[in-house]
Amino acid sequence: MDVRDRSFRTGEWRTIIDRAETGEIDEPIVNVDREDRREFDAIFVGGGAGGRFGSAYLRARGGRQLTIDRWPFLGGSCPHQACVPHHLFSESARELDLARSLSGRLWFGEFDEKRASMLAVIELFRSERNRAHAFMNWQSKEQLGMEYILNAPATVRDEHTVEVAGQRFHARNLVLGTGARTEVPEVPGVDLPGVFDFASLVEELDYEPNRCVIIGGSKVAVEYGSFFQAAGCPTTIVSRSPLMRTASLHHVDEDMRQFVVSGMRSRGMTILEGAEPVEITGNGRATGVVVRTAGGALHTFPADFVFLGTGERACSQPFVDTLGVEVDGRASIVVNPRMQTSVPGVYAIGDLIGPPMEMFKARKCGMAAARNIMGEPYEFDFSEYPDFLHSTYEVTWVGLTEAEARERYERVIVIQMPPPGMGLDETPLPCAEGSMLTAFTNPAASGFQKCVIDAVSRRVVGAHHVGFGAKTAFQYLDHLIHRPGGLTIDQMAEMNELFLNSEHFVQLCRLRAGQLDLTDL
Amino acid sequence: MDVRDRSFRTGEWRTIIDRAETGEIDEPIVNVDREDRREFDAIFVGGGAGGRFGSAYLRARGGRQLTIDRWPFLGGSCPHQACVPHHLFSESARELDLARSLSGRLWFGEFDEKRASMLAVIELFRSERNRAHAFMNWQSKEQLGMEYILNAPATVRDEHTVEVAGQRFHARNLVLGTGARTEVPEVPGVDLPGVFDFASLVEELDYEPNRCVIIGGSKVAVEYGSFFQAAGCPTTIVSRSPLMRTASLHHVDEDMRQFVVSGMRSRGMTILEGAEPVEITGNGRATGVVVRTAGGALHTFPADFVFLGTGERACSQPFVDTLGVEVDGRASIVVNPRMQTSVPGVYAIGDLIGPPMEMFKARKCGMAAARNIMGEPYEFDFSEYPDFLHSTYEVTWVGLTEAEARERYERVIVIQMPPPGMGLDETPLPCAEGSMLTAFTNPAASGFQKCVIDAVSRRVVGAHHVGFGAKTAFQYLDHLIHRPGGLTIDQMAEMNELFLNSEHFVQLCRLRAGQLDLTDL
Repeated sequence: MDVRDRSFRTGEWRTIIDRAETGEIDEPIVNVDREDRREFDAIFVGGGAGGRFGSAYLRARGGRQLTIDRWPFLGGSCPHQACVPHHLFSESARELDLARSLSGRLWFGEFDEKRASMLAVIELFRSERNRAHAFMNWQSKEQLGMEYILNAPATVRDEHTVEVAGQRFHARNLVLGTGARTEVPEVPGVDLPGVFDFASLVEELDYEPNRCVIIGGSKVAVEYGSFFQAAGCPTTIVSRSPLMRTASLHHVDEDMRQFVVSGMRSRGMTILEGAEPVEITGNGRATGVVVRTAGGALHTFPADFVFLGTGERACSQPFVDTLGVEVDGRASIVVNPRMQTSVPGVYAIGDLIGPPMEMFKARKCGMAAARNIMGEPYEFDFSEYPDFLHSTYEVTWVGLTEAEARERYERVIVIQMPPPGMGLDETPLPCAEGSMLTAFTNPAASGFQKCVIDAVSRRVVGAHHVGFGAKTAFQYLDHLIHRPGGLTIDQMAEMNELFLNSEHFVQLCRLRAGQLDLTDL
Repeated sequence: MDVRDRSFRTGEWRTIIDRAETGEIDEPIVNVDREDRREFDAIFVGGGAGGRFGSAYLRARGGRQLTIDRWPFLGGSCPHQACVPHHLFSESARELDLARSLSGRLWFGEFDEKRASMLAVIELFRSERNRAHAFMNWQSKEQLGMEYILNAPATVRDEHTVEVAGQRFHARNLVLGTGARTEVPEVPGVDLPGVFDFASLVEELDYEPNRCVIIGGSKVAVEYGSFFQAAGCPTTIVSRSPLMRTASLHHVDEDMRQFVVSGMRSRGMTILEGAEPVEITGNGRATGVVVRTAGGALHTFPADFVFLGTGERACSQPFVDTLGVEVDGRASIVVNPRMQTSVPGVYAIGDLIGPPMEMFKARKCGMAAARNIMGEPYEFDFSEYPDFLHSTYEVTWVGLTEAEARERYERVIVIQMPPPGMGLDETPLPCAEGSMLTAFTNPAASGFQKCVIDAVSRRVVGAHHVGFGAKTAFQYLDHLIHRPGGLTIDQMAEMNELFLNSEHFVQLCRLRAGQLDLTDL
């Protein structure tokens, strides 16, 4: 299906994608400029976040690219199976909790547990997800000038050659960006029906689960587990490490962690830390999980729904086999800060090069590869970055934890809300958009925040927040904290807050900035 | 009641405030250090936002202050009658709309219009507002070391002397911060029962209104009107100027404005622009408003609830009478950038010096006065600042509108979502936390955003957003845009976004930053 000379509106794209997904369109969707005689500067293998942003950047720089994806749309797993459904699920969890906690009060009717359904939310997502896909196909072609071939898997033949739908394309460089998938743990029974990961959940779930066990303690475990519980499915998390204290999450402040995890427990979730799954039991379908708990005892948790939250592993094998690219012990492709692999002319980006498997990294990897390919030496260091997850809160952090700061700096002060020693139920603060109803009906749940400051340089070195509406601020806080000279408490005091601001950092800093010798607040 | 040597917990403070409000405690609440023989550097007349932050800053600088308020708590009108209830009302409006729009879908039961009650939300606020007051009394004493006298009006005797509860206090300086109140329009019938402003609404409303007319087109009119409508009270706004195009709001982008106002209309609100109220009719209580519409015709709108959204006027008269401070034509006290009035040693801050009547300005005025009083020359320029309001969205903006930028710069590009020319219902973007359910059930309502860039300097010169969760970002965007050198599209492209970020500025900028010659997106 050659779409090069067509200018579809998003509604038409949506129809095409729908038809490709049902198999009605089984040919490649081809948007290639046959009249452009230039060599491709790069072929992007995989049109997810990294591939699409890398392609856009390379085009903007005046280069020529071709992006290939097996799916009939650009954007990759994020809008199809990962970040976007997760956000819909997390918002549903928050609203479900609100509906439950205010049952019979104000305009809320009595909450009807029979109406709480994770399947219904998943079906809503499934029925509408192609809208965002359609937008990205439209934007990539009409606004970004990209060339692409969709609905067809790419096979890399050598470091300059990719085959798709029987045709070979050549390029100066390859950019590999085919992502990662769930690392399936070696637990007997893991292949039983009723065992899902984030991807199969949205593709395949066709019943309403009644009881869930999650294996693993990753972000996905916290996020999806919080949703399952809110959707009326009692959920147990079985995790080797304490939640949010896994190797893949850095800079998690302990007070923040405790606020989040105790909040999950108080919502009725069972959280087993230091525990290991021994077996998934079943009779043609999962019926439970046998767990060795922290004390060493075996215990069987019944479940008609088992969910894997064990983290992801890069899909690198095809490129190892064909190109011989170097990978590390977890199958991630090894790259230098220019995103160059061990094979000259071959770049790798996104989840394929390992953690953090986050959107900013994927997209900026693509940008970094594009710049280097277009002759601009450019290095991307993602050792420091802001991070977040959802429980039924937005949990966001950047910089150092209080403990890390105390190790690194001689004199550290902390600005915290509610203040240390004050019972959470004593104050409805912090609150702002998204937590007002909570603050006025259940103040202990309004949120938590902490700002960590080196008292000598007066620089903000860490910020931590649990609540709503603060997440976006952390993109800018990350920039400000890590810029040369950093961000001082005095500069914070000068900012113009938009009250009620979800994170109260500006005004709380102002309450202390007058001090020559800073003290805690 | 001398509280100097007592260290109350917030719960005890709450009881004291409750008892003061019922009149059971009718004496002043006195927290004065009788053993400190130092002169007061300043007496803050009014313990609202400006007075409290100014006091805290002066204390932090090592000075001695006394803060006096007629109410039994610090914090002023914001947590008692203004910003805080408004945020609770706006969140209620958003949740009411969601409950209505998803009535009978997912876990939402059929929406019962009989349960929609503005009175219930106001009563919830009224019953719980003292929690925040208690926190501020606690914090100001225990954490900030302030001295204060509450529950007693202050009378200024001269530029160094304030009398409270029969006792005179002297100070090197006075800082006046007694705020503003609604400017009552000269319309016959405005004194009738059933006519409210934001303050009397939370104090006095004791019935469930069935039909509302709002006189005036201020922020308060937009915000409270959106709540009234959501709470089941059909609302008509009568405004001389087009909504959001009043003199007190600067930098309102026209596309953003249209998205907001058309959204209000599509929710069923009646908005009369270019219209003037002629009379509030009544028979011992308001029954309607006679309006001269834009065409000149007279029309009577029935109403059992009339709300004044006509803006506010400074409470300056006592200080004119006693001190002779200079005021402008709207009764605002005239100050220089150091917050000094025409009377030496007398400062004025906050709403008392006129618009913008916003929290950041009040608090920073207090800080500015404190610094100057403590011998540090310091000027506060609030001519540029980020701004926001609520419809049932969070509407936030900073810097220039597209039109202003095109007047000032030769070549301007705009990055907008949904893109110009695309029907709102074509795409569920932008979306993020707070708009996921909307994006998947009513994409046209997911939001609007625009980033305005000077294509020559590559600097971001304006940012505009309608949606949820982006407001807090604008504090930092304001700082970044207005810092020396500003914020370029290239710096935005380097930031680490936290996907799904409510405002998509970072990644949308990255899609264009590769261009040497920037174009619209």
